[in-house]
Amino acid sequence: MSDIRNILFIMTDQLRWDYLNCAGMGNIRTPAIDALARRGVRFTQAHVQATVCGPSRMCFLTGRYAVSHGATYNNYPLPIDEWTIGDYLVPHGLRTALIGKTHMAPDLAAMKRLGVDPTSDIGIFIRECGLEPVVRDDGLHPDPGFTEGGPYQAYLKAKGYEGHNLWHEIANSAHNENGDLLSGWYMRHAGQPAVVAEEHSETAWVTDRAIDFITDSGEDPWCLHLSYIKPHWPYIVPAPYHDMFGANHVPVPTRDASEQIDAHPVYAAYMGGKVAQAFQKEEVRQKVIPAYMGLIKQCDDQLGRLLDYLEETGRMKGTMIVLTSDHGDYLGDHWLGEKDLFHEPSVKIPLIIYDPRSEADGARGSVCDALVESIDLAATFVEAAGGDVPDHIIEGRSLMPWLRGEKPEWRSYAISEYDFSVTPQCAALGLSSRDARLFMVFDGRYKMIHAEGGFRPMLFDLEADPEEFQDLGKGTSHQAEIDRLYGCLSEWGLRMSQRVTRSEADIKAMRGASARRGILPFLADGSEVPLELTEKYRGPVRQKHAGS
Amino acid sequence: MSDIRNILFIMTDQLRWDYLNCAGMGNIRTPAIDALARRGVRFTQAHVQATVCGPSRMCFLTGRYAVSHGATYNNYPLPIDEWTIGDYLVPHGLRTALIGKTHMAPDLAAMKRLGVDPTSDIGIFIRECGLEPVVRDDGLHPDPGFTEGGPYQAYLKAKGYEGHNLWHEIANSAHNENGDLLSGWYMRHAGQPAVVAEEHSETAWVTDRAIDFITDSGEDPWCLHLSYIKPHWPYIVPAPYHDMFGANHVPVPTRDASEQIDAHPVYAAYMGGKVAQAFQKEEVRQKVIPAYMGLIKQCDDQLGRLLDYLEETGRMKGTMIVLTSDHGDYLGDHWLGEKDLFHEPSVKIPLIIYDPRSEADGARGSVCDALVESIDLAATFVEAAGGDVPDHIIEGRSLMPWLRGEKPEWRSYAISEYDFSVTPQCAALGLSSRDARLFMVFDGRYKMIHAEGGFRPMLFDLEADPEEFQDLGKGTSHQAEIDRLYGCLSEWGLRMSQRVTRSEADIKAMRGASARRGILPFLADGSEVPLELTEKYRGPVRQKHAGS
Repeated sequence: MSDIRNILFIMTDQLRWDYLNCAGMGNIRTPAIDALARRGVRFTQAHVQATVCGPSRMCFLTGRYAVSHGATYNNYPLPIDEWTIGDYLVPHGLRTALIGKTHMAPDLAAMKRLGVDPTSDIGIFIRECGLEPVVRDDGLHPDPGFTEGGPYQAYLKAKGYEGHNLWHEIANSAHNENGDLLSGWYMRHAGQPAVVAEEHSETAWVTDRAIDFITDSGEDPWCLHLSYIKPHWPYIVPAPYHDMFGANHVPVPTRDASEQIDAHPVYAAYMGGKVAQAFQKEEVRQKVIPAYMGLIKQCDDQLGRLLDYLEETGRMKGTMIVLTSDHGDYLGDHWLGEKDLFHEPSVKIPLIIYDPRSEADGARGSVCDALVESIDLAATFVEAAGGDVPDHIIEGRSLMPWLRGEKPEWRSYAISEYDFSVTPQCAALGLSSRDARLFMVFDGRYKMIHAEGGFRPMLFDLEADPEEFQDLGKGTSHQAEIDRLYGCLSEWGLRMSQRVTRSEADIKAMRGASARRGILPFLADGSEVPLELTEKYRGPVRQKHAGS
Repeated sequence: MSDIRNILFIMTDQLRWDYLNCAGMGNIRTPAIDALARRGVRFTQAHVQATVCGPSRMCFLTGRYAVSHGATYNNYPLPIDEWTIGDYLVPHGLRTALIGKTHMAPDLAAMKRLGVDPTSDIGIFIRECGLEPVVRDDGLHPDPGFTEGGPYQAYLKAKGYEGHNLWHEIANSAHNENGDLLSGWYMRHAGQPAVVAEEHSETAWVTDRAIDFITDSGEDPWCLHLSYIKPHWPYIVPAPYHDMFGANHVPVPTRDASEQIDAHPVYAAYMGGKVAQAFQKEEVRQKVIPAYMGLIKQCDDQLGRLLDYLEETGRMKGTMIVLTSDHGDYLGDHWLGEKDLFHEPSVKIPLIIYDPRSEADGARGSVCDALVESIDLAATFVEAAGGDVPDHIIEGRSLMPWLRGEKPEWRSYAISEYDFSVTPQCAALGLSSRDARLFMVFDGRYKMIHAEGGFRPMLFDLEADPEEFQDLGKGTSHQAEIDRLYGCLSEWGLRMSQRVTRSEADIKAMRGASARRGILPFLADGSEVPLELTEKYRGPVRQKHAGS
């Protein structure tokens, strides 16, 4: 039995794995997150299954690869009978709740087909991927199509803020001396202080809601998905965080001129995109990155407040705490912005897990460089709740052994995927939406990216080239490694991912069932009839019948 | 627009592709099926996606590979949101109906989770895989667990037959001179006449029900899945078919002593099974195959009656007719019985399609040797009904071009699968249920079978060795072909099979949608704002607010 009562599953949005002090970033102090790392295990090789928000989050919440659950891009609905952590944890007595963002897109067409009322309990459960939406706010409320009614808009109104779209005008814009709106959508405004007071900003608001939820829950066990909206763009942050960092804190970009020479067509298409073009300008990095750092610093301060609250209320004992992110942010590294591709700034995530149990004492403060995938968290949560991981559905593996400092047999490669069918790059490359798909295979040293559509693969040797500058897929020098990694990808492609309606236990129980039911083809004579059926078939049975 | 009003989708159970006169079997006359072949196209390279009933039928009915829909073995439930032909055809005005067998196992657990009442219209639609169960009878009613209530039991009772389990005692058993029951479960009784009168046998009964359904439907369009229970075992048939064929009609088995030398472990395990052992006895083949032939002959006679009825009532004009089977039957070939593996007697199926439209006149009576997969029928039916094939869900391709005598660009390999996780062979080989999976890749000449679990592949060259005696996977002589076919399998493994909640059209419509919604990260200045948003963001916007 598990003596973990609660699970606090904290996700930040677009937080780079390496922008934490404990991960080696010298220019930001992140004392709260660092303290959590000292009390838990920090995973240095944690990878997302998909490099954009929506599909990545669906992988976290289902424990399945993106091509297994099918929601492979933002707003591609999650099929209605994909199970999520709510399906696994609620039966173990945990209330699964959401505060913040999930980017969940429900399959309303399937609900309609099956007659599932979207407003019914199960309808809401499905629509919110198994999480009770205590507060659901995915952030990003641009003016076009803006409608009243969001919880954060209501909160700001209640705090006395006035305007049309408070998320945009107050929380994600600044003013100039004339009170003109300086929209956070424009990176040139990144250095300005957001209008909103820090204690009313999205990050503080979400933290307040989490503390309220935990307080209100009293002794009832819960799994809270505390999902911060930041440090995702718009890159604007309230005072005092807006000028806490300056150009002098901005790291030199991890990029090399050679990357632009004979670049893989998909990579080239992304380097040529509007986002990348912007981040290739040093003045943009120097404006944006300090704001990004400020957003991270604010997250750390707010997390500190939350963790102090847990400490003061004695909840650190029974609560497993996970801190991670849905993907990273290139910030100009490799001539790119945003995420999408598979260099470390994008595909790697921070992952810190605090297990309150004494079994975990030996590993506290340690780092683990095992090849971890984001789908491993769902399996970890099921085990934390005292359940058996249904490995005919969940494709991830519980991280518990690592939390105890053990060295289990483990996967030899990690997979990540990117479906870019809706992007301008798909159109620019003249690809069918079916061919606009990338697959990463990383074995801890070599990282290969396979692109559908007849392209050559990309290959990086992170031992010889830790910065991932040299694409060894350009030449033929590493064909053996490429062939080996294609072997891994093929093996993965044939994995059993959809046989979800029969568990291992079901299958064992079914063995011999048809014979027990008396389905016994090809028996040459009665002597071959299994004993338990002998009575039934042996010997003469006199028949009367009227037919023929 | 399509001028096909009705689709008659006829499936036989376990009918070998080559046990038809039109396919070269000299010892059985099959005039009705041969006549259909003369009026349509006969496909000589049609393969099932799975080599046992349940999963094969789910592939036919969903248009998807077994590992895509997940119902990979008999009684592994079909996931609740897998679409079936009913979902596609009903909106086009066709009533989709079932008479006979589907082997459908509904996912009752998913229905419970989603609150779908199994007795509601949608509940029944899901449980019967999109077919209105006008008559549902999967056959095989052994005594253990036998319960009253099946439609065939009721029919026989109404005809005056008496007994407990009439399917067993009357329709699938004989009597000796003392009236003792000679159970059809025992192959030694194969030569005996079943007690039931021919006109009351399963095959005649199912045909009667089909004629009734078509008559009752009048002018309303339909897609009828007429699914015969025979010639599947028990191998026993009523007079006059029981002695229509004798040992002199039994072909010599297609097998070679060399097959048993250094056989692939999975193949060896099947050759060692009880079923195979029985069929390795020549006296068993000589008893069973004449009964099997009799069952086929009876099917052909009953089909003749049905086709005559369609002719007489003028329905051949507006009705597309498909005749196929869910898989074959080894009957001792390759030292095996039943199906399961991928030699031609098992994986190939008869497939004849009659298209009533004039466009098809040019191809009538022709044979087509394109690599056809059973999933192609669902796509063909959607097109026949005037719909667009939803190729983000249906993995098969419409056969219409072939029916018009065209030569379209086509697939270069066919895939078939076998999940044997519940079989004694899985246990005998000490495999995990996850590793008890086989995949066939056939390119028209080379057939490779990949086995999970670390085995070598099997390889056959059907050009040099049409009887599939020489497993070239034993040696290293054909590594290049094996590598090439593994390349095909890898490509197939990465196919897009689960992105079912967004169509190509949806994706095209989504392109640029987030920018239109005003989600415009990283804009350095107003000049980069798309025109339609300029109004909204340009220029000073004066703000009043009470916050901070």
